[in-house]
Amino acid sequence: MPKAAALSPGDTIGILGGGQLGRMLALAAARLGLNCHIYAPEADSPAFQVCAAHTVAAYTDQAALAAFAAKVQAITYEFENVPVETVRFLEGLKPVRPGAKALEVAQDRLCEKDLARSLGARTADYARVSDAASLNAALAQIGTPAVLKTTRFGYDGKGQAKIMTPADAPAALKAMKGQEAILESFVSFDREVSVVAARGCDGAFAPFEVTENEHRNHILHRSSVPANISEAAARDAIEIARKIAGALDYVGVFAVEFFLIDAQGGAVIVNEIAPRVHNSGHWTQDGAITCQFEQHMRAVAGWPLGDASSIGPAEMINLVGPAAAHWRDYLKDGRAHLHLYGKREIREGRKMGHVNRLLG
Amino acid sequence: MPKAAALSPGDTIGILGGGQLGRMLALAAARLGLNCHIYAPEADSPAFQVCAAHTVAAYTDQAALAAFAAKVQAITYEFENVPVETVRFLEGLKPVRPGAKALEVAQDRLCEKDLARSLGARTADYARVSDAASLNAALAQIGTPAVLKTTRFGYDGKGQAKIMTPADAPAALKAMKGQEAILESFVSFDREVSVVAARGCDGAFAPFEVTENEHRNHILHRSSVPANISEAAARDAIEIARKIAGALDYVGVFAVEFFLIDAQGGAVIVNEIAPRVHNSGHWTQDGAITCQFEQHMRAVAGWPLGDASSIGPAEMINLVGPAAAHWRDYLKDGRAHLHLYGKREIREGRKMGHVNRLLG
Repeated sequence: MPKAAALSPGDTIGILGGGQLGRMLALAAARLGLNCHIYAPEADSPAFQVCAAHTVAAYTDQAALAAFAAKVQAITYEFENVPVETVRFLEGLKPVRPGAKALEVAQDRLCEKDLARSLGARTADYARVSDAASLNAALAQIGTPAVLKTTRFGYDGKGQAKIMTPADAPAALKAMKGQEAILESFVSFDREVSVVAARGCDGAFAPFEVTENEHRNHILHRSSVPANISEAAARDAIEIARKIAGALDYVGVFAVEFFLIDAQGGAVIVNEIAPRVHNSGHWTQDGAITCQFEQHMRAVAGWPLGDASSIGPAEMINLVGPAAAHWRDYLKDGRAHLHLYGKREIREGRKMGHVNRLLG
Repeated sequence: MPKAAALSPGDTIGILGGGQLGRMLALAAARLGLNCHIYAPEADSPAFQVCAAHTVAAYTDQAALAAFAAKVQAITYEFENVPVETVRFLEGLKPVRPGAKALEVAQDRLCEKDLARSLGARTADYARVSDAASLNAALAQIGTPAVLKTTRFGYDGKGQAKIMTPADAPAALKAMKGQEAILESFVSFDREVSVVAARGCDGAFAPFEVTENEHRNHILHRSSVPANISEAAARDAIEIARKIAGALDYVGVFAVEFFLIDAQGGAVIVNEIAPRVHNSGHWTQDGAITCQFEQHMRAVAGWPLGDASSIGPAEMINLVGPAAAHWRDYLKDGRAHLHLYGKREIREGRKMGHVNRLLG
C-alpha cells in the first residue's frame, strides 16, 4: 500500500459510491480546492452532478478500478457495503482512507461487537446463528424478546426480524434467507445517541458533540445537539469512539451509534459502527465550525483536522420519501438550511434531503 | 422574455462565466438540489470541476448559446463583462436573472453614476472624456487630483490613470487607448464599505450586514463585519442599495461599493455597482445564516430569499497570487475556513482563494 504524502490543492480524491454522502463529500472537497472522481455502479448517481469526472462500473471490475485509481491521488468510500476485495485491490494502487480493516469490521455485526467488547465497551448480549440448532442455543442463552439480524449488509432496519417468543424463531430464521445471522438481546434504552468523530493521518482525534437521534420506521428522522445525556455518559461514549478509531488505525470520519440508559447515572451501549460520514452528523454542515464532510476530506487528504466545536444548539430533520414534497415550506423558513440530494424520483423510504436549523 | 415559474429541485441553472464566482454559485446550487451548466470561453475554467455539464464557447456564438439555453431552466451570469448582446439573445429563450438592464448600467461608469445621482445618492464629481479637448474641459470643471478611468471593462484598478497635476493629462489619456473615459474627482475617504444584498423575483430585499473593505494594490485584501460605520450611514448605504435594486428591477445578489467619510456624522459616496455576487460578500459563507451564493441561486430559481443575518463578527482574507502558497498554514488554524478555487497555477495578482474566520 503506497503511503502517500499529503495531497495538494488541485489533486483528485476518488470516492467509491455516488449517493448523497458522496455528493456532500465532493462539495466539501471542492471548497478546499480538491477535485473528486466518483466511482459507482448506478448510472444516475446523485454525486455525478457535482463532479467533472465519474466512472460507471461494477465494484468487481478490476480494469475499471485500475483506470480509476490511475486518475486520483487518494481514495475513500461513502458507504460500508463496498466489497472488501475492491478496497484491498485499490490499496495496492493508491492510499485508501479509511482502509479495508475498518470496512471488514463494520460489515460484520459479530466482528463489530467483538471489537467493542474487547475495548471494554458494553453491547447487547449476542450470539452467532447459522441454522435452527444455533438459533435455539442462542435463544436459550439470550432469551426473548430478541432480534435476529443478518451479520452483513443490513441498514435502516433491513435484514432484521424480531423474536418476541420462541414461536417466532422459525419465521425469523427464514427471513435471514440463509445468511449468517446474529441474535441480539433487546436493550431497554431511553434514547439513542451517536458520536461522529474524525481521526487524522497523524492520529489526531476530533469528536463532534454527542448527538441525540430519533428514528421513525427504522430510519433516522431527527438528530439534535445538545443531546439529553449526562456529562459522564457523553465522556464514556466519546472515549469508546476514540478507542475504536485507534484499534482500527482509522483515517477519516466515522460514527458509533449507542443506546443510552439513564438509570445508574447513565450507561452507553454500542449498537453499530459506521466507517463513513453519517446521517446523524449532517447537522454539522450548519451547526459546527468544520462539518463532517470537510473533516473527512481533510483526513483523506492527509491534512490537519478542523475545529469540530458546535456553533450552538442545532437540529437536523431528514426528508424521507413524500416529506421531500414539502421543500417549498422549508424554503420559506429563512433560518432553515435546506439540503437536497438531486434525486428526481420520490420513493417511499428514500432519503431525498434534510433540513438543518440552528436553534434558539 | 419567457417569465418562468419557479424552478424545482432537479432543474438546471445555466451560468455564464466559469471563474471562482461561478464555481461557488454552482456549489451553493448543488446543496439546494439544483444542477448547473457552466458556459465559458476558457477550457480550464475553475467552475467546470464542480458541475457535470459545461460548454466551452465564445459569448458571441449564437448556436452554442441556443444549445446551452435549451438545456437549462434559468440563466445567470457571474461577472459583469459578459456582452449585453449575449444576455439579450438569451433573454429571448429563457429567463435571465439579473437581466440585460443591470448589466448595461454596471458596464458603464457614466450610467452607473447617473443612476446613483438620479436616486439621490452622492458620487464623486465626474465628467465624460473622449479626447484631449473634453479632458481639458473636465479638468477645468473637476480640478486635480483626479482619476481618469475607461467607462467600460475596468476592474481591480485596470484601465485607470491618476492625474495629480494637469501635466499628467496627456499620459493618462494615452493609457485609455482610445476608449471612452470618465474623469472622477478624488474622494478623500476614511474607509471603504460595501452593501451586498439580494432582491428576489417577488421584490423582497435582503441586505447582508454592511461590510468594511481594505484594498491592497487595487485588489480587495480583507473584508470584515461589523464595519466601523455609524448606524445612520449604514442605514443610508442600505437604502441606496435598495433603491438601485428597485430601479434596475434587479433579481439576484449585487454589491454597491461606497467610500465612507466620517466627518459630519458620516456620509457614503457610491463608487461602483457590481451586478453579481461579490468578493466583499465571501464572508457570508461562514458568517451569515444564508450565504450570498445560496441567496443568489434562490433568487434566480424564483425561490424565497433566506435569512441574511450575520452569525457574528467575521472576516475574509483574500489569497492573491503567492499568498496562496501558505494554504497549509491556514489549514492548521482549525477555526479558519479555507476556500480554494482549484486554480493550479499561481500568478501575480490572481485570486486563488480566501479564508473566512468567525471572530471573537
